[in-house]
Amino acid sequence: MAGIEALDGQRILVVGGGGFIGRHVLRQLLGTGATALAMDITAAPPEFAHLDWVTGSLADEALFASAASGCDQVIFLAGSSLPGSANNDLAAEIRGHVQVAVKAAEISQAQGVGRFLFASSGGTVYGHSAEAPLAEDAPTLPRNAYGVSKLAVEHYLRVLGLLRGIETVSMRFSNPYGEGQRAHRSQGFIAAAMQHAIAGKVLPIWGDGSVERDFIHVGDLARGCLAIAAAPEPPGIVNIGSGRATSLLEVLARVEKALGRAVPVAFEPGRVIDVARNVLDISRARETLGWSPGVTLDEGLARTAEWWLSGART
Amino acid sequence: MAGIEALDGQRILVVGGGGFIGRHVLRQLLGTGATALAMDITAAPPEFAHLDWVTGSLADEALFASAASGCDQVIFLAGSSLPGSANNDLAAEIRGHVQVAVKAAEISQAQGVGRFLFASSGGTVYGHSAEAPLAEDAPTLPRNAYGVSKLAVEHYLRVLGLLRGIETVSMRFSNPYGEGQRAHRSQGFIAAAMQHAIAGKVLPIWGDGSVERDFIHVGDLARGCLAIAAAPEPPGIVNIGSGRATSLLEVLARVEKALGRAVPVAFEPGRVIDVARNVLDISRARETLGWSPGVTLDEGLARTAEWWLSGART
Repeated sequence: MAGIEALDGQRILVVGGGGFIGRHVLRQLLGTGATALAMDITAAPPEFAHLDWVTGSLADEALFASAASGCDQVIFLAGSSLPGSANNDLAAEIRGHVQVAVKAAEISQAQGVGRFLFASSGGTVYGHSAEAPLAEDAPTLPRNAYGVSKLAVEHYLRVLGLLRGIETVSMRFSNPYGEGQRAHRSQGFIAAAMQHAIAGKVLPIWGDGSVERDFIHVGDLARGCLAIAAAPEPPGIVNIGSGRATSLLEVLARVEKALGRAVPVAFEPGRVIDVARNVLDISRARETLGWSPGVTLDEGLARTAEWWLSGART
Repeated sequence: MAGIEALDGQRILVVGGGGFIGRHVLRQLLGTGATALAMDITAAPPEFAHLDWVTGSLADEALFASAASGCDQVIFLAGSSLPGSANNDLAAEIRGHVQVAVKAAEISQAQGVGRFLFASSGGTVYGHSAEAPLAEDAPTLPRNAYGVSKLAVEHYLRVLGLLRGIETVSMRFSNPYGEGQRAHRSQGFIAAAMQHAIAGKVLPIWGDGSVERDFIHVGDLARGCLAIAAAPEPPGIVNIGSGRATSLLEVLARVEKALGRAVPVAFEPGRVIDVARNVLDISRARETLGWSPGVTLDEGLARTAEWWLSGART
């Protein structure tokens, strides 16, 4: 990736550094000339014990301000909700998700941070199904509250940039998977499949498994975050995905191959919030960042299976 | 307007019934077979002393729930911010505007309300300038926090409808004016012009006055609300405007004619949040609601001038 030396000497705060994506971003940042630091609700894992690590809640605005102070960039990966649960109490979702993220951006700007990278969701902000991959200027009609919240934050960040000059980038991630991802029912389909296969438990699948998603290995995704941080003038909104559609049934077959075990499944009625197909057009990232994904699905699944089988998941 | 008899026997709550638009909506509702009631932070004006009027804040969720209970429809016209001030503290804007409106819709749904009408903003949600009038499916890229908040509420309401079945309608109003509108610097240009002319004060204008807006008389707008309330299947999003573009300078000339007085003005630098032209395409409202505006700008200004000159504004 060209231009990564632009990070030399920069101080970069990863909010949500203890999470699945955050850890991968931190690992990659440690291989650059940047000084990485992290904030998370959880304490630093042993691997990052040497880092400047702020443990606490974003609700503690003074704590976040002190963490952001002196930083060149903030990579905001904190997420307080999941696509499914967000629908149950929209007002709480707004408070816990939209307000927290926008407040963090406002504090960052006030602390002199030059660029704020926000983890948005290419899997939910577009909402509709399309045969063709979805480019950033496709209509945005999210079908669940999680997607609406991501979209709302994107718009507030764009306006914050217009009004106060901070550079903001909304990173529309597709479905990340890989080593270190925990299994949740409504997010992390591959992690759930791995976990259920190893535990010999039946995996519930909403619908008939024909829905297609864009799965990106977390290593590629983290590299995309660094490419955005290193870019002289990154786009305000950018898709980060594999650009390829894979059905859940196809993923299951490949997971079984990677694990060498069967994944027992039970089909359940489809949900109104699920779209049939979601695959991202990643031309903008290729062209403006010089970034493209490098890990094939089979390679990524092999690495992920190795992680699950090693027992490192505990 | 055809179909207004559909309101017979309905119980309709107007939130923000004490405001400029709210009073006009209430007056028109009183001419139908519906039972109108109101909620507002202010007490009932004498004109509405006979109505069931709930005085209190939307932050009092139990109070709002009791007001909404038993209602067929809620017309939500409460607005806690102005286009300018919303930009100063985005997190507070989210809390005070987005969260409050979405919570009101959630409570309404829980109370069995069938339809929730939300006052959105055709003047800010689109954001960009366009030569042609803006239809509802035009891209939405608001340039200020007020517009982002309106757009965010629209999306949450759409998802709330998908998830829980309540009918929601986002009414994208253009710039309303008319009898009863107070003068604010950042909203209600015509009211400000009238007030300044009568007081002999200099009216500040951002930019050179060439920006074009879509001014709609509040009587037409209120009639649009009733048409939506009476429609068997109203669209989820609908523009309510005049469909005509008028520059601020042109409005000033007509205000001077209506008042018979000069409006002294001072031109100030333009603001980044102002778009050059904003005029709504009202085809959807015409076609789906059988509604169209009936008050010409000169007629509306004559009525407004009469109100200001009568001293009724105090």
